[in-house]
Amino acid sequence: MAEAPLSPGSTIGILGGGQLGRMLAIAAARLGLRCHIFADDAEAPAFDVATAHTLATFDDQAALEDFAHAVDVATFEFENVPVSALQTVAEIVPVYPGPKALELTQDRLIEKDFLQAHGIPVAPYQAVNSPQELERALERIGVPALLKTRRLGYDGKGQVKIENGSASTAISGELAGQLLLLESFIPFERELSVVLVCDLSGDMRCYDVAENVHKNQILQETRVPARISEETAAGAQKMAEQIAVGLDIVGVVCVEFFDCGVDAATPLMVNEIAPRVHNSGHWTLDGCLVSQFENHMRAVAGWPLGPTERHSNAVMTNLIGDDVERWHAALGDPQTALHLYGKNESRKGRKMGHMTRLLPKNAGQ
Amino acid sequence: MAEAPLSPGSTIGILGGGQLGRMLAIAAARLGLRCHIFADDAEAPAFDVATAHTLATFDDQAALEDFAHAVDVATFEFENVPVSALQTVAEIVPVYPGPKALELTQDRLIEKDFLQAHGIPVAPYQAVNSPQELERALERIGVPALLKTRRLGYDGKGQVKIENGSASTAISGELAGQLLLLESFIPFERELSVVLVCDLSGDMRCYDVAENVHKNQILQETRVPARISEETAAGAQKMAEQIAVGLDIVGVVCVEFFDCGVDAATPLMVNEIAPRVHNSGHWTLDGCLVSQFENHMRAVAGWPLGPTERHSNAVMTNLIGDDVERWHAALGDPQTALHLYGKNESRKGRKMGHMTRLLPKNAGQ
Repeated sequence: MAEAPLSPGSTIGILGGGQLGRMLAIAAARLGLRCHIFADDAEAPAFDVATAHTLATFDDQAALEDFAHAVDVATFEFENVPVSALQTVAEIVPVYPGPKALELTQDRLIEKDFLQAHGIPVAPYQAVNSPQELERALERIGVPALLKTRRLGYDGKGQVKIENGSASTAISGELAGQLLLLESFIPFERELSVVLVCDLSGDMRCYDVAENVHKNQILQETRVPARISEETAAGAQKMAEQIAVGLDIVGVVCVEFFDCGVDAATPLMVNEIAPRVHNSGHWTLDGCLVSQFENHMRAVAGWPLGPTERHSNAVMTNLIGDDVERWHAALGDPQTALHLYGKNESRKGRKMGHMTRLLPKNAGQ
Repeated sequence: MAEAPLSPGSTIGILGGGQLGRMLAIAAARLGLRCHIFADDAEAPAFDVATAHTLATFDDQAALEDFAHAVDVATFEFENVPVSALQTVAEIVPVYPGPKALELTQDRLIEKDFLQAHGIPVAPYQAVNSPQELERALERIGVPALLKTRRLGYDGKGQVKIENGSASTAISGELAGQLLLLESFIPFERELSVVLVCDLSGDMRCYDVAENVHKNQILQETRVPARISEETAAGAQKMAEQIAVGLDIVGVVCVEFFDCGVDAATPLMVNEIAPRVHNSGHWTLDGCLVSQFENHMRAVAGWPLGPTERHSNAVMTNLIGDDVERWHAALGDPQTALHLYGKNESRKGRKMGHMTRLLPKNAGQ
């Protein structure tokens, strides 16, 4: 239960066993740390690179307790881990970041209220629990707008775009019977993200601001440096720092922004917070001496943070679904590093790997 | 038994479970490949990051056969794997590099004969099997000289320096009763090494020539670029390529050189060959987009090689024995990456980890 730095050879528990858990475990191994993965999927990609694993569901109290007793500290790799599971573990060992960050970011309404309370610009939004409330919200917010589930949405799942004033069919399908949120659709110039890491002593470091391109609501490409002014970059990093402090983050947090351009009434708005390592930080594996994964593990272990400066410019491209068939061509590109996640089956929309193209720092891209 | 490229998700078997096996397994995981480690030490550092492992001795025929049937291709991480073990595995699955490279480099006499037959300069040497032969060899070669066991020497083990003409007490202790070799002691200006990788199609790539400093016969520091002329670098890389061809290398080979200076009768001599990833190539983990470990795994998988250019200058320092206590200070250095090998016990002379200090490419060091 100590919060002293872990000794090399200690074991970090990770809730979740996807590609983020896999890359965290690889980063831990480089530092001489061991990992124990808790996941509910027998084919979890992270199992391959961990010293130990537990295959159980997140409501299996006994399995969670055994897991907690087997590790020195715990963290998580996806933000939809039930808060109750995290609390069970946190009664036995320290968990970073704590349940607060998870709770605040699991619910889009609570997240937006939190941001607004901290004076951070967000798109106009309103909670919606009935067709009548949706009509009234549409009147206030206007169209186009996005109707989203408050919980468990990711990669565009759990949302519909409303293009005209009528919302008669909007609350149907996967949205029916759920707590919802209506958000104004923001016509941004570009999407940005800041990956930031905090250690236990409060030291806080940002990686360079990244510029992201989504396709079908899934991240497709991240480019660093972003093609933005120094002022915009500094503004985004400052907001990310405020958010990290407000969430008591220990480890990595990613903040996604809409960059609406310097002439907009609100040039920069926060879109989403992920209290974990993030796809838009994968470029740091190849473009920085210490990656987001290693810095997360350092923070969780109570160790000092590593540098977050980039040594090279980078363009990261996700391999989604059948894109993974490009793996062999990627191996032949002299400027590209290939990362595959060890998933056996390629499905539509499934993240199978990514590629990072490196360019000399500050070269033209 | 196919020599076609492996599919992502295939399993590579590694004979040996030390830090080299660990770093190979980590590199394989990044590519979506699985590893199965065969080692005779229950605390083998590579077990922590592998999908499967076999704990058995290298003369356990049944265990070797089961291992071979469980993998798609095999390789090794240290050159003292018994050739018989490699042959057992090679009857069931392809092994890269093959038994020839291992056999030639396990015996210093055979290795030197091989080099000499290829016209590659080496220090004057002579086989020695008795005190009488040692006297005669000393007359021919002169002092100072090194008396070495032909087999199983590493990190300065299995050798004594003879400073004066009398060899009366030289064949004693660990040298007694072994096949020996007397070598002239070369007063070099600096030690260099070339890490080279070949793929199955014959494509061959060298990393930049490294400059090494040994202390107590153990590698202490590697610096890239080496402080040598372009001609010297090209000469060393050319010799390394000749050797790789002669050994039918698939994967990584490291060639160590004595740089005796441009005014010496023989400016460059080969000291040793290691048919595997090598400590003097650890800097490539941080200084290159694709490390020696990943390129070895690509070659063994029948995949195209990745680039070997460095993106940064690097100084790699080994953490040997109690040096590992510097781990916490290393974490705080903004230009340094720390690598620990997950070994539980620090012993004198034991490699516990290493640090890589990165500097901008071609900056002064």
